[in-house]
Amino acid sequence: MTTPTTEPFDAVDVIVTKRDGKVLSDAQIDWVIDAYTRGVVAEEQMSALNMAILLNGMTRAEISRWTAAMIASGERMDFSSLSRPTSDKHSTGGVGDKITLPLAPLVAVFDVAVPQLSGRGLGHTGGTLDKLESIPGWRAALSNEEMLDQLEDVGAVICQAGSGLAPADRKLYALRDVTGTVEAIPLIASSIMSKKIAEGTGALVLDVKVGTGAFMKDIERARELARTMVDLGTDAGVNTVALLTDMSTPLGLAAGNALEVRESVEVLSGGGPADVVDLTVALAVEMLAAAGKPVPEAEVRAALSDGRALGKWNDMIRAQGGDPDAELPWAAHTQDVLAEADGVITAMDAYAVGIAAWRLGAGRARREDSVQAGAGVQLLAKPGDTVRAGEPIMVLHTDTPERFGRAVEALEGAVTIGEAFTPGTVVLDRISGF
Amino acid sequence: MTTPTTEPFDAVDVIVTKRDGKVLSDAQIDWVIDAYTRGVVAEEQMSALNMAILLNGMTRAEISRWTAAMIASGERMDFSSLSRPTSDKHSTGGVGDKITLPLAPLVAVFDVAVPQLSGRGLGHTGGTLDKLESIPGWRAALSNEEMLDQLEDVGAVICQAGSGLAPADRKLYALRDVTGTVEAIPLIASSIMSKKIAEGTGALVLDVKVGTGAFMKDIERARELARTMVDLGTDAGVNTVALLTDMSTPLGLAAGNALEVRESVEVLSGGGPADVVDLTVALAVEMLAAAGKPVPEAEVRAALSDGRALGKWNDMIRAQGGDPDAELPWAAHTQDVLAEADGVITAMDAYAVGIAAWRLGAGRARREDSVQAGAGVQLLAKPGDTVRAGEPIMVLHTDTPERFGRAVEALEGAVTIGEAFTPGTVVLDRISGF
Repeated sequence: MTTPTTEPFDAVDVIVTKRDGKVLSDAQIDWVIDAYTRGVVAEEQMSALNMAILLNGMTRAEISRWTAAMIASGERMDFSSLSRPTSDKHSTGGVGDKITLPLAPLVAVFDVAVPQLSGRGLGHTGGTLDKLESIPGWRAALSNEEMLDQLEDVGAVICQAGSGLAPADRKLYALRDVTGTVEAIPLIASSIMSKKIAEGTGALVLDVKVGTGAFMKDIERARELARTMVDLGTDAGVNTVALLTDMSTPLGLAAGNALEVRESVEVLSGGGPADVVDLTVALAVEMLAAAGKPVPEAEVRAALSDGRALGKWNDMIRAQGGDPDAELPWAAHTQDVLAEADGVITAMDAYAVGIAAWRLGAGRARREDSVQAGAGVQLLAKPGDTVRAGEPIMVLHTDTPERFGRAVEALEGAVTIGEAFTPGTVVLDRISGF
Repeated sequence: MTTPTTEPFDAVDVIVTKRDGKVLSDAQIDWVIDAYTRGVVAEEQMSALNMAILLNGMTRAEISRWTAAMIASGERMDFSSLSRPTSDKHSTGGVGDKITLPLAPLVAVFDVAVPQLSGRGLGHTGGTLDKLESIPGWRAALSNEEMLDQLEDVGAVICQAGSGLAPADRKLYALRDVTGTVEAIPLIASSIMSKKIAEGTGALVLDVKVGTGAFMKDIERARELARTMVDLGTDAGVNTVALLTDMSTPLGLAAGNALEVRESVEVLSGGGPADVVDLTVALAVEMLAAAGKPVPEAEVRAALSDGRALGKWNDMIRAQGGDPDAELPWAAHTQDVLAEADGVITAMDAYAVGIAAWRLGAGRARREDSVQAGAGVQLLAKPGDTVRAGEPIMVLHTDTPERFGRAVEALEGAVTIGEAFTPGTVVLDRISGF
């Protein structure tokens, strides 16, 4: 029942192999990714294969080969011409997660280059580029040459990922998004790691978020994802380490684009909320160690309070056309959210805060939507703080006040007020591949 | 993260429900089949759902609703105007399975109408319409009115299924064929039964084949498929019974279009191979009982030897423009296959014989291919027969002698010659829903 073809495999045979719980061969994996990129394997065939992978899993060797095949579908970058080592960070996405902003210049202080290729946000977790675009003049799109020059001159760059890296992943991600197969750990891990490995970084620190505001709600699945990604990086010769970090409460006191840039500048100026500072420092210590340039935590912290990190930030923003001294936009309208009882805040649901910020205009529902620079949620209190009924605990910001209603709806039940709060730790676990 | 839509469901939510092993609601099933038929649910979404169904299964209620939704996608036929009850048969497909040809006129002898809507063959199992089209003048396509008239006048019709029955199934089958999801029992059962129930028959006998030459290789899966289909028929008010029958050895002594029509006429004339006669009689007894008109087996057998069934056959062929007395075509070339040793044939692999017949030109690889009327495999010996090395045991027929080589290849190792053969039974099990 074969039809004449010049292809070495039949898509149905590849699907049936995984459907029946068997291991795909290297040649099958190389072919199916390449043929899918060429359009020979149809969307409906890749969709069936994705679902079989989600339900039947993949071995470490299969995931590694799958990732390599996605890398091979596009160009690879090369930072070997730089005068210093590179170290990159990837976060699986959280509410109020502006850590990249203070982190990149902080690491650059210690002569390790940070090439941070980022994306825009979709859904409730926000995107790093959306945040930086609230700075007047700043531009996300750089040529490879501009990026390399900035890495050499400033030591840190946060810019838009080019479309040449792992094009198979872009096509595959769009398919997974509409076919209920986003949640497959082998596919998540290979999607993230194919881009990071193709980017050519020498070291990589993964911030895998766990909790209500994260993609991974429970620590076991988060640990499996982290382990899978660390293995992939290690197999590809990248020094890779993952921190599992808490995302049940929003990070810091701001969720929204300009609101988060403001908070990042506070951190870079030696202030800012303790959880943001602690996580920034923890990740910087890991990035420096992974790049072979370990720096004691106290020294890293000092670079935040003595102005060196802020100096790097100013250089980095200016190099991309931004004015670090310009006034950041504020939304046109605000509305307070009040405490409903007297007591101590014992929980604040990160997911609800993320949805509220998104509904206020900080995020987008579809890729083609634009975002509001000033929109978002500002927290006046966090778990552990004592509040009185009727006291403001959040301020909602938006340019479009008709959105307040749905944002308030999202926040119903999001804040629990009780009697005692036991503070947890931000970093829950650490998995290292080297 | 919802986008504006007038649809009551989101395809991803339906996929995720089944992916996570949960039960689809009636409303989800109705919507997903309807929206897929309308093109709102995309091929890649239905493909992911099919794979999730294959791997996670469906409850009896889900399969029943899925089938009802496919029936609702098209027209329903109605035989209530006929003066007699209707009874239909469906076979899951086997090598040398020409049973429909003698069976339909045989049942019609006893005043039960047989509306046999059939298809063309794809792959190694052959199609009933392909076989009948080897009769000069015979035509497969009838209007609904012609079909009803013939059922009233002759009592039996074998014709092409109209495209109006369960169009969702046609679309879904084409998708399953290219996405490795043909093998899902809920999808096989609903595909077959949606067409049979939409056709409006009052009684239905299922011939579920088991063995190397069948789609189902082992009896446990065949039994599960039979039970699922019987349940579906019963839930829809159709008297349904299934026989599980052996397909490890080809049925009868002929595999190929005109070759099988000749053998069918032998059976209708009181002769023919015992296995074909026995299965024809067994199925006729079931069809008559299911239609509420039970007839003892001896009486059914008598209708084959006394010419009544042959008379109905002649009427049936003539009613569709065929000449039952015309010479049937022979292939232009033949080649013998010889016994490799002295002894008793202990096994003859039905799948290998089916592939050989198909390669000789009896079947098609793609829907648009045509078939050779005279091509196929004629068996001179079967399991249980004693043979001598070098004696012909098969004759291969084709118009295109360059095909002999690959047919012979398919038959390598297909015939086992040993010392003793224990004959089995054709009917392995019976599952009744009423």
